[in-house]
Amino acid sequence: MIRTLLRTTKTSYIQLNQRSTIRFASTKHGKVLTTETMHPLVKSVEYAVRGALPIRAEALSQQLKKDPSKLNFDKVVFCNIGNPQQLNQKPITFFRQVASLCENPELLKTENRALVSKLYPADAIARAQVLLKNIGSVGAYSHSKGITHIRENVAKFIERRDGYAADPENIFLTQGASEGVQKVIQLLTQNQQSGIMIPIPQYPLYSATLSLVDAAPVPYYLNESQAWGLGREELQKSVDEARKKGVDVRALVIINPGNPTGQCLSEENIKEIIQFCHEERIVLLADEVYQTNIYQPERRPFHSFKKVLKSMGPEYQEQELFSFHSTSKGMIGECGRRGGYFECVNIDPAIMEQLYKISSISLCPNVHGQIMVDLMTNPPVEGDESYPQYKAEVDAIFQSLGRRATKLAQCFNGLEGVTCNDAEGAMYLFPQITLPNKAIEAAKKEGMTPDSFYAMGMLEATGVCVIPGSGFGQEPGTFHFRSTFLPEENLFDKFCGSLEDFHKSFMNKYRD
Amino acid sequence: MIRTLLRTTKTSYIQLNQRSTIRFASTKHGKVLTTETMHPLVKSVEYAVRGALPIRAEALSQQLKKDPSKLNFDKVVFCNIGNPQQLNQKPITFFRQVASLCENPELLKTENRALVSKLYPADAIARAQVLLKNIGSVGAYSHSKGITHIRENVAKFIERRDGYAADPENIFLTQGASEGVQKVIQLLTQNQQSGIMIPIPQYPLYSATLSLVDAAPVPYYLNESQAWGLGREELQKSVDEARKKGVDVRALVIINPGNPTGQCLSEENIKEIIQFCHEERIVLLADEVYQTNIYQPERRPFHSFKKVLKSMGPEYQEQELFSFHSTSKGMIGECGRRGGYFECVNIDPAIMEQLYKISSISLCPNVHGQIMVDLMTNPPVEGDESYPQYKAEVDAIFQSLGRRATKLAQCFNGLEGVTCNDAEGAMYLFPQITLPNKAIEAAKKEGMTPDSFYAMGMLEATGVCVIPGSGFGQEPGTFHFRSTFLPEENLFDKFCGSLEDFHKSFMNKYRD
Repeated sequence: MIRTLLRTTKTSYIQLNQRSTIRFASTKHGKVLTTETMHPLVKSVEYAVRGALPIRAEALSQQLKKDPSKLNFDKVVFCNIGNPQQLNQKPITFFRQVASLCENPELLKTENRALVSKLYPADAIARAQVLLKNIGSVGAYSHSKGITHIRENVAKFIERRDGYAADPENIFLTQGASEGVQKVIQLLTQNQQSGIMIPIPQYPLYSATLSLVDAAPVPYYLNESQAWGLGREELQKSVDEARKKGVDVRALVIINPGNPTGQCLSEENIKEIIQFCHEERIVLLADEVYQTNIYQPERRPFHSFKKVLKSMGPEYQEQELFSFHSTSKGMIGECGRRGGYFECVNIDPAIMEQLYKISSISLCPNVHGQIMVDLMTNPPVEGDESYPQYKAEVDAIFQSLGRRATKLAQCFNGLEGVTCNDAEGAMYLFPQITLPNKAIEAAKKEGMTPDSFYAMGMLEATGVCVIPGSGFGQEPGTFHFRSTFLPEENLFDKFCGSLEDFHKSFMNKYRD
Repeated sequence: MIRTLLRTTKTSYIQLNQRSTIRFASTKHGKVLTTETMHPLVKSVEYAVRGALPIRAEALSQQLKKDPSKLNFDKVVFCNIGNPQQLNQKPITFFRQVASLCENPELLKTENRALVSKLYPADAIARAQVLLKNIGSVGAYSHSKGITHIRENVAKFIERRDGYAADPENIFLTQGASEGVQKVIQLLTQNQQSGIMIPIPQYPLYSATLSLVDAAPVPYYLNESQAWGLGREELQKSVDEARKKGVDVRALVIINPGNPTGQCLSEENIKEIIQFCHEERIVLLADEVYQTNIYQPERRPFHSFKKVLKSMGPEYQEQELFSFHSTSKGMIGECGRRGGYFECVNIDPAIMEQLYKISSISLCPNVHGQIMVDLMTNPPVEGDESYPQYKAEVDAIFQSLGRRATKLAQCFNGLEGVTCNDAEGAMYLFPQITLPNKAIEAAKKEGMTPDSFYAMGMLEATGVCVIPGSGFGQEPGTFHFRSTFLPEENLFDKFCGSLEDFHKSFMNKYRD
């Protein structure tokens, strides 16, 4: 250890002698730690989903509590992020019952059984007992990869979903999918010439993580006029251009169903992507957190990359793949719990050891998140006491999400100069707005991008917080925004109405 | 966003042209992602607390389940990490009651009140109601800094503890203290010449994080012969040497009470350290997660760095300080929940904005961890229905920890060639072992450090898993190990006995 310390320090000494500018914090006045002296990579990161718009929305929310008289709305509606329970989506009863029993094992004692069985169904009690037998206490650090029993259940879930075997040793439980993505990207990049292909538009976790690890994002564009489709041609163009410039392209991120774009890939399309990765020697990162948010299940069912890969010829059976999932999305929406997992397919065992090591620095994913992963992948089944209620709850959320997706797309498509693809999946719409030149000029005067100007106008007028397309990436010269379709269904007409009113008055003000 | 992407990519292109060796993953055969192509900084990280010893302990644990006949023990005792509930420490009843009610708000409905009031005391119900009113649902993402109400409660706790004001806006809730430490260190370093002072021995989170961000650890030594004391002289020597070599020393990590060393700093000593940091323009990182694990409270009470700083003259009132706390330690031991916070004292508001941005990439700390922070900082008080039970539970754990600390130190000091300082605080002892040359030779043959050889021998013989001193750093030529004193008190004599037996037979085998 000491040797390591000294060696590392020595390396630093040598390398810094080769640098031309040395700035000592200690020679300056005022604060030692400032935006001048802080880490430049951290400074360069952008993360719009929680950027200027949500910060302003938070301030308006506070103002509503103190002095609502000056605002034209009585509520801030947070459509900036897929956070269903913030917008009053009810949690799945069975999941919360089991989790609360694990939290308070006193309830499982014999002397409390009579009372507790009036509050809890027998299958929730039984599940909590099985979990606690395997976990010990939710207050103890678990294995850094996650609790073995839960990883076994995840493997069985994947097997049922795909029809192909899964090994619990290839599964890492994580604090939401984001943590897994960050760890894998960190490991996958070697230096500034390492490139990772990301879709445009993308979820900004990817660009932010690449900024932080100082690797090169290699953008490929989704085709808006073909329902945000993705062809091999575009992937090939993207990788060829990057390699011509000397970038070592190592991995391809696919978000399926898409975020912010909501498309769901066909099996054929997935095959094409796998062929591309195989031929180009590129690791696949499949962000599949919206795998149950599928609104046209007959036309566009969800196919996991793992399943499609396994169904292909022997030449593809070494293709390296990471697949990410989360408890935050689906019909569960347990975002605050920070639960998730990733599966490693055909990943070098030595790399999995490195992933274990890096996971162990944070000790373990939080156990409550792990429990929710168990419940998500292992819900009540037909015949279980809790199944009818579970099914009714999940179905109601699913159908309502589908209705709201359709309604919001209709609302957007009815607006002057706005076009919007349907959501085949996920929780978002990403409409394109043709902004008048006058609006673009006005935005320039405010020092804002035109889409931010529009979104900020919407927030100030309606209390609805969406995220400008520039936060996700968009074809130059086009303007978009991302909105969830999560507002409560009984308030949805009012929600759409306020967006229509705002858009009309915005266009009346700025129409060329 | 697009512009940012292109710019970043372009930078990479330019910079890589200046590099001599370019290795394309795509020109190789076999796996794309290997330990050859992975990120070299990740590869270089060491993390002994969950390294070779715990991995072997895990394997032995599995073997005990399958075929215990070949092992000399019936249980693996994990003393490698402070994980009290893994070793059957009972959680605080009130905390779990509140947490389980927050998890299952159905229990708070009027129709369930009669039943629930037989299972839960009124103050737990009332607390859960207040929390849920402020949180909404535990399933929703919260503010990235943590729930405002809980940050307000943390601020009040700090005020009560220190007698000086605390601002909730300066508090960030985190997933354990580790996450906060990693974020702050990442921000504090600028490049390879940025140095952060860390104690030797240290908790390996610090060296691992510095490895990951490619900054220079600047070691200072704790004085074992003076109860792991720390003088200004040693700090001065360390910073002077580093600066002479061109390192930009920016921060000083102090772990108080110490980990792995268990010392608790006097107020005078803390003043001296603050003076040093002020004069040398060094940011203070105070790792104070063991602040309630104080076993000689009259001789060595805990003083927070914030309190001591505030008590000093006006020239110190701009000293930058981060103070870290956790729900994993104390008498609570809620490790699996991953809860914690840090307070920013005199930190540039622009830096706090950067910390907010970086926190927002992971969306929020898990809400269950946040709830435990609320309970830890705001426990039942005299007059509350739950106070007598809370006090009895905390006192029992506290007294038992004190007894076990003393007993284990006595055990170690009774062994041939072993000396061990008392634990004034924390959960560990860090005895020094004088190993015979024969043992050092035998270790060499096995390709192990002598302390790893000893610890591995102990594990194989007794099932007790400790961590060799080389995992924490130690004076060259000395050998130590870290053991928690957390095994259950009713098994403690057996535990000590098995260590004694092992040590005797080890010494008989290798005595020079």
